Amino acid sequence: MELVDRLLKGDKRAAARLISSVENEDERAAEVLRELYKYTGNTHIIGITGPPGVGKSSLVDRLTRAFRKKGKKVGIVAIDPTSRFTGGAILGDRIRMTELATDEGVFMRSMGTRGHHGGIAKATTEATMVLDAMGMDLVIVETVGAGQSQSEIWECVHTSILVEMPGMGDEIQALKAGILEIGDIFVVNKGDLAGVDQLVKELENVAEYKAMEQKWKPPVHVTIATEDKGTDEVVSSIEDHLGYLKESGEYQKREEERTRGEFTRIVQALLLKKAFAGEKSEKFDQLLKEIIEKKTDPFTAAEKLLEE
Amino acid sequence: MELVDRLLKGDKRAAARLISSVENEDERAAEVLRELYKYTGNTHIIGITGPPGVGKSSLVDRLTRAFRKKGKKVGIVAIDPTSRFTGGAILGDRIRMTELATDEGVFMRSMGTRGHHGGIAKATTEATMVLDAMGMDLVIVETVGAGQSQSEIWECVHTSILVEMPGMGDEIQALKAGILEIGDIFVVNKGDLAGVDQLVKELENVAEYKAMEQKWKPPVHVTIATEDKGTDEVVSSIEDHLGYLKESGEYQKREEERTRGEFTRIVQALLLKKAFAGEKSEKFDQLLKEIIEKKTDPFTAAEKLLEE
Repeated sequence: MELVDRLLKGDKRAAARLISSVENEDERAAEVLRELYKYTGNTHIIGITGPPGVGKSSLVDRLTRAFRKKGKKVGIVAIDPTSRFTGGAILGDRIRMTELATDEGVFMRSMGTRGHHGGIAKATTEATMVLDAMGMDLVIVETVGAGQSQSEIWECVHTSILVEMPGMGDEIQALKAGILEIGDIFVVNKGDLAGVDQLVKELENVAEYKAMEQKWKPPVHVTIATEDKGTDEVVSSIEDHLGYLKESGEYQKREEERTRGEFTRIVQALLLKKAFAGEKSEKFDQLLKEIIEKKTDPFTAAEKLLEE
Repeated sequence: MELVDRLLKGDKRAAARLISSVENEDERAAEVLRELYKYTGNTHIIGITGPPGVGKSSLVDRLTRAFRKKGKKVGIVAIDPTSRFTGGAILGDRIRMTELATDEGVFMRSMGTRGHHGGIAKATTEATMVLDAMGMDLVIVETVGAGQSQSEIWECVHTSILVEMPGMGDEIQALKAGILEIGDIFVVNKGDLAGVDQLVKELENVAEYKAMEQKWKPPVHVTIATEDKGTDEVVSSIEDHLGYLKESGEYQKREEERTRGEFTRIVQALLLKKAFAGEKSEKFDQLLKEIIEKKTDPFTAAEKLLEE
């Protein structure tokens, strides 16, 4: 396939088209991914999350530039929770990368969370496969932390980074308590605000706790992404974490988990597509009518639909 | 079934047990819901969302008390995005309702977003069915606004309320832009903070815009939930919106949409349960091994799994 050949040579336009296919779940997507699969498995996938407003985007920009200086190629997938409704990505995301967009070694893409049969995790995994096959050394997946569909994204990454900032309210603290379980690296951004020491201390406590259960102790870094402060330390930790994963055998384990999740999502999507096609669709509508008229209940109707 | 009889008499302990069955997706859940279905369809379902920290919980408390004064029974389902990781609900949510918990006309439940085959929307719909059947006049579903699985919740409600507060950053603004499309009522909470007028004006613009497409123009209310200011105006709007839905025929339409969504989710969950059971499960593991060894790709393997 011409598009695949172009992608394997690193053609960004081919990548854009293939990821659109993935997003739209058109027929070609599965076809292409099937061909690409054997070229995947060579990229370091990094997830970055945190509450809105902590400066994730700025940090991703800084990290990308730092990795570029080291000669690494970087793919970025930004998950945008709003676009279920708007059908578009956050404008800022699209604008902010214009400078990096002209760099041949960077590819950035915002993805909406709407309309994916297999959920956003499936679309993200597949976009990552495209960037992996095209030769990106790292893929950064950026996401807002809340929500089930988002949390599945953590199954898709090797290294997860949680970004916080000082002085957020109670609800954020509670969200954090949940999210903390997934951070391999903690970053306190906006490190010039009051309350940094307190937050760093809290995160270090969590890191200590995690170190009792695993060999990797999550480092805590303070950054000011808008001024490029602290970026290099985060880059070093990302490299260290990859080293740890490979040495400890954890890398292979995460790859297997990633693959299991991916396979499950593909099977589910295919199953649902088959189940709602053709005659079933008419039968579905007929049963729906009976449910609305309270002649039956949805549980009995579902069994009836699937019996045939 | 004894549990069903007790529920229909308004027994809160029976409700708690049934909702746990729903959450754990145990065998009994479908059995019970099947019996309950004919007793549902009498409750006004209200969705409340907004970014973390705007004071949704406080507002829900105030609204609940106000409806209680009017002699209405109120069920509350709080969706908690953290518990994918912690397995528990936000502590504050559990504590805060202790006062209302002793009131026979109030039932409150936090639900985690983890592990539901049909997603949180399915579990929420089913919990709402339990509260509906037990005779609650209103059910309030409280959720953080972001994420695909959360947005599906909007298909499950009659009246949606978006809560904002003044002075949040750009990313919140962008989130808002997406979420706005779903608000039937807008609330600016923490109405004593700077920037209220600006936010009210923005929301009124959106309301004007929506009024061009539909007969209902979303009202914009300013509240200070911690001081119980503005609560009554929100209550009036909730009642007005129900009146509008019923008069315009929109109520029936939303009920049908709700039912369609619910039926679809039940069919999907049942389908997936069947698909991964028994022999298929062995075959799945075998194919997964081949994928990991790169002997095949997950797309081809999925087709092979479902062919048999």
